[in-house]
Amino acid sequence: MTLALATEVGYRGLTIEAVARRAGVGKHTIYRRWSSIADLLLDALSRVWVSDLDYHATGEVRADLREQFRRSSRALSTPPIGPIYRAVIAEAQSDPALRAALHERFLAVVEKRTLERIVLAQHSGELVDGVDLRVAAEVLAGTLYYRWLLTPYPVDEHVIDGIIDMFMDAYGAAPRPALDA
Amino acid sequence: MTLALATEVGYRGLTIEAVARRAGVGKHTIYRRWSSIADLLLDALSRVWVSDLDYHATGEVRADLREQFRRSSRALSTPPIGPIYRAVIAEAQSDPALRAALHERFLAVVEKRTLERIVLAQHSGELVDGVDLRVAAEVLAGTLYYRWLLTPYPVDEHVIDGIIDMFMDAYGAAPRPALDA
Repeated sequence: MTLALATEVGYRGLTIEAVARRAGVGKHTIYRRWSSIADLLLDALSRVWVSDLDYHATGEVRADLREQFRRSSRALSTPPIGPIYRAVIAEAQSDPALRAALHERFLAVVEKRTLERIVLAQHSGELVDGVDLRVAAEVLAGTLYYRWLLTPYPVDEHVIDGIIDMFMDAYGAAPRPALDA
Repeated sequence: MTLALATEVGYRGLTIEAVARRAGVGKHTIYRRWSSIADLLLDALSRVWVSDLDYHATGEVRADLREQFRRSSRALSTPPIGPIYRAVIAEAQSDPALRAALHERFLAVVEKRTLERIVLAQHSGELVDGVDLRVAAEVLAGTLYYRWLLTPYPVDEHVIDGIIDMFMDAYGAAPRPALDA
């Protein structure tokens, strides 16, 4: 309901009053649960999205990362998640508390699940052992955002595969293929 | 002047009228040159910043990337550039034309200079040959933005070194060091 309303009226037109009116309740009912519009939207986004953040473990780390990046890319480019998430991120630039909440509710979850998936690959021998993969998990989780937020280009297959290639070239257990192969 | 005024009154308080008043000219004089506040701020940012985007070529690619990332990190965390740039990025989320201008004026420049620096390293034998480094240049140029825009954490030495390690592990010409070394 909140996301549908946000899509109709835009982030800046969305008020607690409008949400209360649409829900047919008093605005104090809304305020009892959510302190602000941003808080309410984070909650609405997390309901439709967080279940989607789980990795589908097919057994091969490259395929799993690819599938995960493709799903994220689709979500980021599709209403209602895409435009609303973009508006929340914009709002978070002048609101450090919202930025922290956004990270805690979404991005820390993505980073954690990505780290778990690649540590699993380390244990199964697909990736080299003895390397701390925490920064790599952050790069994998965060790197699509640059293209989405700061360039006019889509998050396409080419960039997704390029990022995964760089990660696998860095930490894949198989030796780098010969250049003339 | 524009950046000083923006720092005083904040991005949302900044108007063409206020800039004209501070400059002691009519607002049409401002409009003749810049179509909007965002356009004016992009121009002001580029004057103080773009000269800073050049790589200092010390001869070693890892050291050059490190130096460049540290300078970017300092600029992002310091007024006036940091907060104003953050406000322009926020505004660009609801304005695709501004997003395209932001990319063309800054980020495409950063990507291009990063690509030139790493292709140079490829030619000098520091990096493996025969690999297309364009996506890697985008990852290197963009990856700090995730942490800056979407997490509560600083862009610190740890994450800078982790990203460069991943890049060098992927494309460095030297063999990966033995794990028990």
